[in-house]
Amino acid sequence: MGQLIEEFDAYRSKMNEVILGKQNKVINRLFNLDTNTYAAGALDVKTKEMLGLVASMVLRCDDCIKYHLGKCFEQGVTTEEVYEVFAVANIVGGTIVIPHTRRGAEFWEELTASGAH
Amino acid sequence: MGQLIEEFDAYRSKMNEVILGKQNKVINRLFNLDTNTYAAGALDVKTKEMLGLVASMVLRCDDCIKYHLGKCFEQGVTTEEVYEVFAVANIVGGTIVIPHTRRGAEFWEELTASGAH
Amino acid sequence: MGQLIEEFDAYRSKMNEVILGKQNKVINRLFNLDTNTYAAGALDVKTKEMLGLVASMVLRCDDCIKYHLGKCFEQGVTTEEVYEVFAVANIVGGTIVIPHTRRGAEFWEELTASGAH
Amino acid sequence: MGQLIEEFDAYRSKMNEVILGKQNKVINRLFNLDTNTYAAGALDVKTKEMLGLVASMVLRCDDCIKYHLGKCFEQGVTTEEVYEVFAVANIVGGTIVIPHTRRGAEFWEELTASGAH
Amino acid sequence: MGQLIEEFDAYRSKMNEVILGKQNKVINRLFNLDTNTYAAGALDVKTKEMLGLVASMVLRCDDCIKYHLGKCFEQGVTTEEVYEVFAVANIVGGTIVIPHTRRGAEFWEELTASGAH
Amino acid sequence: MGQLIEEFDAYRSKMNEVILGKQNKVINRLFNLDTNTYAAGALDVKTKEMLGLVASMVLRCDDCIKYHLGKCFEQGVTTEEVYEVFAVANIVGGTIVIPHTRRGAEFWEELTASGAH
Repeated sequence: MGQLIEEFDAYRSKMNEVILGKQNKVINRLFNLDTNTYAAGALDVKTKEMLGLVASMVLRCDDCIKYHLGKCFEQGVTTEEVYEVFAVANIVGGTIVIPHTRRGAEFWEELTASGAH
Repeated sequence: MGQLIEEFDAYRSKMNEVILGKQNKVINRLFNLDTNTYAAGALDVKTKEMLGLVASMVLRCDDCIKYHLGKCFEQGVTTEEVYEVFAVANIVGGTIVIPHTRRGAEFWEELTASGAH
Repeated sequence: MGQLIEEFDAYRSKMNEVILGKQNKVINRLFNLDTNTYAAGALDVKTKEMLGLVASMVLRCDDCIKYHLGKCFEQGVTTEEVYEVFAVANIVGGTIVIPHTRRGAEFWEELTASGAH
Repeated sequence: MGQLIEEFDAYRSKMNEVILGKQNKVINRLFNLDTNTYAAGALDVKTKEMLGLVASMVLRCDDCIKYHLGKCFEQGVTTEEVYEVFAVANIVGGTIVIPHTRRGAEFWEELTASGAH
Repeated sequence: MGQLIEEFDAYRSKMNEVILGKQNKVINRLFNLDTNTYAAGALDVKTKEMLGLVASMVLRCDDCIKYHLGKCFEQGVTTEEVYEVFAVANIVGGTIVIPHTRRGAEFWEELTASGAH
Repeated sequence: MGQLIEEFDAYRSKMNEVILGKQNKVINRLFNLDTNTYAAGALDVKTKEMLGLVASMVLRCDDCIKYHLGKCFEQGVTTEEVYEVFAVANIVGGTIVIPHTRRGAEFWEELTASGAH
């Protein structure tokens, strides 16, 4: 696994534990609801993860982009498909999305270089 | 066709004509590129329109939401699927997306009531 | 009750019913969680409603502003206090918050003119 | 003077009076500082008003756009120049700026139709 | 004092000095006005700092979050109260606020570990 | 050339190459259109780069700010002028723009220290 992926996962896990440990009911339920949102329903998981990715991109949240790129990779989204999601995000959100696309592209290179799903 | 749809389409057409008539090359090419973005590629048109919809919702652009709802309707997206897109948008973007969801839901009711694709 | 308040409440109720009626679990649970967020806890309801108000203002959501202004009024927030919340929102969010402050101020005038909690 | 301009000016004046009348020092000083921001300095008023316009467009604030369009018109900004500002805003901010460009274009038509500076 | 706090304070002081040294009147007056905004008035400092915190969170500004967390800590805001502010921010602003909540939570751990006000 | 400038340029070039190499037509055309946007027209390049800068600041995109600061420096924008652009951005966008102004100010110091255009 690449370095960006490892660092992202480690920090995310460590801090989620801190946050959830405070037992704030609203936050803990929101985290739970977040997971449910991407479960298969009328739309499949792959589509939902691409929806999460494009939403994260136009809102310009690097960590959210990394998270959904990881999930898209697990769901077998291809590089060509990922770049079509990037295209929608850059057209809708404008050129301010480009720096986030750079960091997303770097993370995707690491995901696809790792070769494993 | 319902009143909201008609008003939206009429104003959009009228003002696009004014804008494109000014012959600003960058704007005219961006409008053109916008159309290309949602053409079938590695992802089909239906998926791309749902990506456009969720991006419009988290960015809270009522007119963009209406536009993509119209396109989703043409692509045969079901009410259950549309609400799963709404769900992703509301979870990612938070409760400030709710008022836009209300107006989107109203537009969707009109689209589905019209019965025609 | 003033006209702005009535129109806001009527549309909000009508569309919430449409949305909740679609039985999307994520959306329905988010609406529920939203209500819980402002319940008394370590912070009292009045403080939480002012937090909701300032968040709505910097995110420039007119309907959210109206909603929280209504709740602040019910909680006995004074005009002087409301304007201090407006001040934080305008300083943090900048002059683009001013047009929303105008519409918020208009709604607040109607709330306080109505005289009843 | 056109209808859009009149309505915008009337509502803006009325509500500014309500807001400033509450004597919140922070808000009143911010309104004052806002005026100073666009005074001639190292950059001239025309350039500053175009900066205010593009900032308002990418932040998608219709009332701010109208305000700065009015000021740009007073400063003799031409239609070709205004559309170059629109172009920067639409490229940087993406297609979600388009609906605001439509409303801005409509307001600009009214300003230029009025014929007077 | 922890490392995150020290780095944040040092960089902030150094760059504020550079900026204020340029003697731009609007910027220098805005910095001054910013300080006044959080002074005690109809609302106390503690409440105002929590308002500043929630506004910073929904606008997803890590440095602003750190700044207001520091001030909240000085005002004796408890961990339970801070997490209720986090809860409002995450519900209003959605899951894109989560990565900022992680960094805010890490900063808060350091503040509370330092033990001194 | 300073360290911040070098790192920014190197990463930007490397990742743009990765992105453009994927041959997504929409993205590649958008990158191209982005360049055209700032070419001389009715407005000169200097004015357009200041428009790009203020738009990047209110949208709080550090990399976009760095990019346009570099271009403004090439166009002979003075420190006093840059700070007037900063002033518009901070007034329109609010105090959440301050942390980005700090990083922009640091980058500008490096540009002007380098002494060469």
